[in-house]
Amino acid sequence: MGKNVAIAGVTGAVGQEFLGILAERDFPIDSLKMLASHRSVGKKIAFKGKEYTVEELGAGSFERVDIALFSAGGARSKEFASAAVAAGAVVVDNSSAFRMDGDVPLVIPEINTGAIDGHKGIIANPNCSTIIANVPVWPLHKANPVKRMIVSTYQAASGAGQAAMLEMVEQAKEVLDGRPVTCNTLKYQLAFNLYNHDSKIGDNGYNEEEMKMVHETRKIFNCPEIAITCTCVRVPVMRAHCESINLEFTDPITPAEARDILSLAPGVTVVDDVENNRFPMPIDASGKDDCLVGRIRQDESVPDNRAINLWVAGDQLRKGAALNAVQIAEKLL
Amino acid sequence: MGKNVAIAGVTGAVGQEFLGILAERDFPIDSLKMLASHRSVGKKIAFKGKEYTVEELGAGSFERVDIALFSAGGARSKEFASAAVAAGAVVVDNSSAFRMDGDVPLVIPEINTGAIDGHKGIIANPNCSTIIANVPVWPLHKANPVKRMIVSTYQAASGAGQAAMLEMVEQAKEVLDGRPVTCNTLKYQLAFNLYNHDSKIGDNGYNEEEMKMVHETRKIFNCPEIAITCTCVRVPVMRAHCESINLEFTDPITPAEARDILSLAPGVTVVDDVENNRFPMPIDASGKDDCLVGRIRQDESVPDNRAINLWVAGDQLRKGAALNAVQIAEKLL
Repeated sequence: MGKNVAIAGVTGAVGQEFLGILAERDFPIDSLKMLASHRSVGKKIAFKGKEYTVEELGAGSFERVDIALFSAGGARSKEFASAAVAAGAVVVDNSSAFRMDGDVPLVIPEINTGAIDGHKGIIANPNCSTIIANVPVWPLHKANPVKRMIVSTYQAASGAGQAAMLEMVEQAKEVLDGRPVTCNTLKYQLAFNLYNHDSKIGDNGYNEEEMKMVHETRKIFNCPEIAITCTCVRVPVMRAHCESINLEFTDPITPAEARDILSLAPGVTVVDDVENNRFPMPIDASGKDDCLVGRIRQDESVPDNRAINLWVAGDQLRKGAALNAVQIAEKLL
Repeated sequence: MGKNVAIAGVTGAVGQEFLGILAERDFPIDSLKMLASHRSVGKKIAFKGKEYTVEELGAGSFERVDIALFSAGGARSKEFASAAVAAGAVVVDNSSAFRMDGDVPLVIPEINTGAIDGHKGIIANPNCSTIIANVPVWPLHKANPVKRMIVSTYQAASGAGQAAMLEMVEQAKEVLDGRPVTCNTLKYQLAFNLYNHDSKIGDNGYNEEEMKMVHETRKIFNCPEIAITCTCVRVPVMRAHCESINLEFTDPITPAEARDILSLAPGVTVVDDVENNRFPMPIDASGKDDCLVGRIRQDESVPDNRAINLWVAGDQLRKGAALNAVQIAEKLL
C-alpha cells in the first residue's frame, strides 16, 4: 500500500534531506518523481539503490501523484501547488507561501496533528526556527500557558540553502588564506562573522523571519494572544539552529518542573549537563531528529518564579524542514 | 608630564591591544615596563619604534610605576596587585578579581567616571560583555529607568584569549580538511559550531559570565534593583562580541526616541540601515572604539510601548577590555 510521491526541489539541501529521511524511515513509496528546475533536468539521483532522473517541475508533473513534498521556494509553490492539488495530490509545502492561509493547516506533528484533518490539499510546514522553538515550548505551554516569549536565534547557513552552505565554506577558506571574501548567495561575510537575518524588514522594524516566529507560533499553538518578540541572526554554523528562549508563564514554574515536562516530551531530548558544562550544540544536534534542550534555569528577573530560560538546538534541515514534512506525510498514510 | 606605566600580561591578546591603544592615543609615557609570566621573559616587543624586553611579573616589578595595567588573569591580579599598590602605583585591573569588591570602583568612563575618585589603588575594568551591553543601555536607562534587561550574547573567541583565537583558526582548517578537531584551549569545537559559555555554573544554573553581567551592571549603574537575565554563548567569530538585548522601561519609549538618545551617546555609533538590511556585525565592530547599535525596534510583546529590542556589536579586545582600561588610565592623568 505505497504512495506515489513527488519531490519538488529535489536537488536542494532540503530536497536531498527528504530523500535521506524517506529512506531512513522506510516511507512506503510505489513511485517516486524527482522534480527540479530546468537547469537540473536529466541529473541522476539515487534512492534506495535505484537511480532516478530529475524531471522539470511543471503544472503537468503531478499526474497520479498522491503526496507532493515541495521545497523549491515560495514562488514555485505558489505556481505549482494548485496544479498538484488539482491532479489529486496532497501537497506538504516547506515554503512560506501558504503558511498563514486560513484554509491551510500549519503543522508540527508533535503539537497539532489534528489540524491535518481539515486540509484542502495543501498542508504547510512551518519555518525552521519556529519548529525548533515550538517543539520544546509547546509541552510547557500546555502545562502552564506561556504569556510571553522572547527569542534570539543563532541560525545555520543551511537555512539559506545549499549554495549558502557551500559559500560559507569557500568564505572560510578565503579568510584563512587572506583573500577577499566572496558574497554571491550570502548577503555578507558569514565565515568568522554573523549578521541579522537578511529577509525583508517591515514597517515595525522586524524582518520576515522574525515575524514568521510570531505569526506561525500563534497559529500552531492556536493561541492568538501569546506575546512573542524575536531577533533572528545568521551564524557561521553548517546545519543546526540554536535559540535562546525566555518564557514567561501564567503560573509559577521551577526548572525541575520544566525539566520533567521536557524529559517526557515527544521530539525533545534534554541535554543539560551542568557538571560537565555540556549543553545543546549545533554539531550535536546535526543529524538528529530531536530538538536538544538545556540551560533550563529560573529567570530571576521575573518575580514569583514565573519565567524560565531555555537553550535549544535543532537540525535545520531535518526537524526544521524535511523531517517535519515527512512526519506530516506519514500522518496522511 | 608622562607616567611610568607597567603592563602585566603584555604578551596576551589584551596586553598586545594595550600597546596599540596607548600608542594610538598618544598616552604620555615616561617609562614602560613590559611584564609577563616566566615563559615570556626575554621576549622583545616594540612600542613606538623602541624595543622593550619582557620582564617577569613579580611583587618587585612595580618600583616607581605610576599606572599598572593588569591583564594577566585573576590569579595574577590577586597575587600582585597589592604589591603594585604598595609600591605607589594605581592598578587598572582587567580581571574579575576585584570587580565586586566594595572598595574597588568598577568603571566604564562613559557611565561612571566619578567612581574613580574613590579608588584605593585599584580600579576594576568590567567584563567585556558587560561593557558592550552597558555602553548603549546606560543613556537609555538615564532617560527612562530600565526595569528589566534580557540579554543573549554572541561572544568572540578573543574573550577566551589569544590561544583560543589561534585554536579556532586551526579548528577551522581541521574541519575544512576533514581532520579531527583539536580542543586544547577551547572546551569544544568552536569553528562552525557554538556553545554556551564554559565558565563555572552556580547553584542557580547560571554560569559566571552570565552572573557578571547581572552583578556588574547593577554596580556600574548604581542600581541594585535592575532585573537582569542573561544567556552567554561563544560563537566562531574572532574579536567582536554581539548581544541581543531586550529592555523593559519604566515609562513608554519609542524606537525613534531610543535612536535619538543613542545617536548622541558617547561611545555609541548607531548602525541601523533598515533599507539596506545592514546592522552591526563583528567584522564591522572589529578595530573600532565605539559600540555599534542597531535593530532598534519596539518590542510589541510588552503593552504600552514600554520595551525595546536592540542589537549591539563591540570589539571585545578594545572597548571590551584594553580601550576601556586605557580610558580609565587617562582619567588618572
